[in-house]
Amino acid sequence: MSNKGITKRSEDYSQWYIDIVLKAELADYSPVKGCMVIRPNGYGIWENIQKHLDRMFKETGHVNAYFPMLIPESFLKKEAEHVEGFAPECAVVTHGGGKPLEEPLVIRPTSETIIWATYKNWISSYRDLPLLINQWANVCRWEMRTRLFLRTTEFLWQEGHTAHASFEEAEEEALRMIRVYQKFAEDYMAMPVIVGKKTESEKFAGAVHTYTIEALMQDGKALQAGTSHNLGQNFAKAFDVKFQDRDMELKYVYATSWGVSTRLVGALIMTHSDDKGLILPPKIAPLPVVIVPIWHTLEEEKQVLDFAKKITEGWDKLFYKIDDRDQYKPGFKFNDWELKGIPIRIEIGPRDVKSNSVVAVRRDTGEKINLTIDNLKEKIDLLLTEIQSNLYKTAKERLQKNTFTVDSYEEYKQRIEQGGFFRVFLDYTNPEVEKILKEETKSSIRCIPFDAPEEEGPCMITGKPCKNRVIAAQAY
Amino acid sequence: MSNKGITKRSEDYSQWYIDIVLKAELADYSPVKGCMVIRPNGYGIWENIQKHLDRMFKETGHVNAYFPMLIPESFLKKEAEHVEGFAPECAVVTHGGGKPLEEPLVIRPTSETIIWATYKNWISSYRDLPLLINQWANVCRWEMRTRLFLRTTEFLWQEGHTAHASFEEAEEEALRMIRVYQKFAEDYMAMPVIVGKKTESEKFAGAVHTYTIEALMQDGKALQAGTSHNLGQNFAKAFDVKFQDRDMELKYVYATSWGVSTRLVGALIMTHSDDKGLILPPKIAPLPVVIVPIWHTLEEEKQVLDFAKKITEGWDKLFYKIDDRDQYKPGFKFNDWELKGIPIRIEIGPRDVKSNSVVAVRRDTGEKINLTIDNLKEKIDLLLTEIQSNLYKTAKERLQKNTFTVDSYEEYKQRIEQGGFFRVFLDYTNPEVEKILKEETKSSIRCIPFDAPEEEGPCMITGKPCKNRVIAAQAY
Repeated sequence: MSNKGITKRSEDYSQWYIDIVLKAELADYSPVKGCMVIRPNGYGIWENIQKHLDRMFKETGHVNAYFPMLIPESFLKKEAEHVEGFAPECAVVTHGGGKPLEEPLVIRPTSETIIWATYKNWISSYRDLPLLINQWANVCRWEMRTRLFLRTTEFLWQEGHTAHASFEEAEEEALRMIRVYQKFAEDYMAMPVIVGKKTESEKFAGAVHTYTIEALMQDGKALQAGTSHNLGQNFAKAFDVKFQDRDMELKYVYATSWGVSTRLVGALIMTHSDDKGLILPPKIAPLPVVIVPIWHTLEEEKQVLDFAKKITEGWDKLFYKIDDRDQYKPGFKFNDWELKGIPIRIEIGPRDVKSNSVVAVRRDTGEKINLTIDNLKEKIDLLLTEIQSNLYKTAKERLQKNTFTVDSYEEYKQRIEQGGFFRVFLDYTNPEVEKILKEETKSSIRCIPFDAPEEEGPCMITGKPCKNRVIAAQAY
Repeated sequence: MSNKGITKRSEDYSQWYIDIVLKAELADYSPVKGCMVIRPNGYGIWENIQKHLDRMFKETGHVNAYFPMLIPESFLKKEAEHVEGFAPECAVVTHGGGKPLEEPLVIRPTSETIIWATYKNWISSYRDLPLLINQWANVCRWEMRTRLFLRTTEFLWQEGHTAHASFEEAEEEALRMIRVYQKFAEDYMAMPVIVGKKTESEKFAGAVHTYTIEALMQDGKALQAGTSHNLGQNFAKAFDVKFQDRDMELKYVYATSWGVSTRLVGALIMTHSDDKGLILPPKIAPLPVVIVPIWHTLEEEKQVLDFAKKITEGWDKLFYKIDDRDQYKPGFKFNDWELKGIPIRIEIGPRDVKSNSVVAVRRDTGEKINLTIDNLKEKIDLLLTEIQSNLYKTAKERLQKNTFTVDSYEEYKQRIEQGGFFRVFLDYTNPEVEKILKEETKSSIRCIPFDAPEEEGPCMITGKPCKNRVIAAQAY
């Protein structure tokens, strides 16, 4: 265990994760079983995720709206697969305003049903299509085993729900949005992902196709970071939503839905952080720069603080913070900001003031860099860009190093516990195969990757000839 | 009724309001009793409200966080007045994950209890104070009679919850935040308000002092638009939250809370709109400018569209929209954008192309203005500024014209139905007085205004001498 009370990753990865979340004050347990409190440090990360994703959604033509959190229980039952998937996880409201309700209401586990019940009133002609709506909301799925950010009964997310005039358009939209998620994960979170399609048994309850981005955590486990579904006409049929097409015929509407959640904060932690604490990519860090002044005498204090103010003149207040707390020593502050993952720490002592320079310390590499103060902002910005790409590069190399091509089930069974993505032949047209895989290896097919090279080979469990390898792994 | 199917305000103000909300597609009824769907046009307004308020909160030192939506029923009972105020309005979750819960959970009607149960773990020393946290969230209060935006079972809001080392600091914070709300209402929503203190019987359940901003709607009814509470040590005592002060003594923490909700969207509508539809202040309008090209021939179509693209080169995509729908005539489009409250409509016909000019039409006054296209963006920006201040001026004049000083209860009873703010002497130290007022006149004391001139006079109901007049009105 480190001096900050953080368990080492090599000792206990799960405990390390929890230590980071609690000690960096990202989240806290709540008095309500399975729910979490997202603390300001963690919520600031979510706000940045929201900011960038929201812009990307708007650039692709989407608008935001808000639908009720409470859904009549009967709605859930209108789509057969959907109710099977979600009913067992629901929180149920039975009383309101001091009286029992005539019909119980569930807190949304996802909003397809309430949204399609509403779209029925909004869509009548091809002129009303496409309808491209997103919602930022909280949802509730009753979970037995929870883990901060990764799996909680209540979580925050966004859910896009679009309506289209043809299957092809819906398919195009579902693919567009999984690519938006990929771009966001890679360019902002510095988290490389594998993009692909879910198998029949892993797809969303009610979907025709589900697309996914799968990331690889440091411990070798996969994490599903975002999904996008082509729902075909399933929900339009369940809620009787038809439109008059250009050919004057009445047709059922085609749908997609897609979402990412506060789970991404967990993914971020397990992609970049180390035994000293959190590491945040600069584009997502709520606070990119912290300045720690170092002094011994009152005179020096004034000197270094004045210098700190001078060099930050004109900087955006949300870009940096001067840590002038006088009850703590510099060493304590260094540790504290390291723990909290601030990308760049700037140290300023009396000697730096004299030489018109500062020491910048990179959180990702620990490297100390002397910088003269001319064009300091540009130098810092450049350093932040370097940190961002270094984090991505490191994570990408780890993903590549831990992606294995395996042909024998025996070998797979021996190696799966050590973690990684496994490129294997598995007959995913046969649900039995996935059942065996899960039971015998606690792993699953994460996706059929889009960029899989053309290959043929025998299913490692049944021997049946397969086209293309899938990605299998143990997962969060 | 107008050609857009909007009831005239003079005929039926309530129906006019609902017509605006539905026809401008701001919100819709939902299949769940008392809940509403906020449509993209309405949610865009809320997003702008959020954007500006969030910045103002951050500039005053606050950070965002997120607390669980579900609260153990027993928590509510820990603060005596609080439970009395909120328990009858709660939605209660009794089942989760297919099983009955050991203890029922309520969906938050407000979050003081869950937040103070959490603050207990975060606060132990004066060094942990002040704690300045805000939350953007949905809440649920079971309502019998609902009205879109104004009163719904579920609504969106922000709730600030701060912790302080002294009563004075909490008082300062509560006052600071009501002034933030005032500034936001006046500068962004162009909605003048009276700022003051609530009487004992009108204050928040669990507060020591409640401050309020009260706006006056076009029909003469008051609308409480935002409140800020000094909660004293009430919640700290209920949840046993103490801190060690500088003098080493253990003391209970002082608290504030403050909030505004999607109700503000209703207030906005009833402050500015007219019989033709919605009117939005430019600073809050999701889309400030719409361009309607006018053509008869295909050649003209190309001309005007090319011209529209040319003059908008470099404009922010979220600032304007070119309405190039070819299935609708210009007259239909004019009506449509008028109904939807776009502050400026720009009309471009073939003659305008020739003369290098456009016609700008102000939504607030209907005025048509010829503008040559040099520095067009600056001219439009100036016009938007004028619209913003004209809307405020008009609303302010209406408020002043409809604020009456009345001394006799007989006169009050005769005039109260016609609406307006009434400056009256009422003995608010006596709860009986407010009870009589409510029963006999369906009105209430909206606030004891901060800026009331010093005056003395007899309570118009009991005759008891009072200091300062209060503001009384019928209210939403």
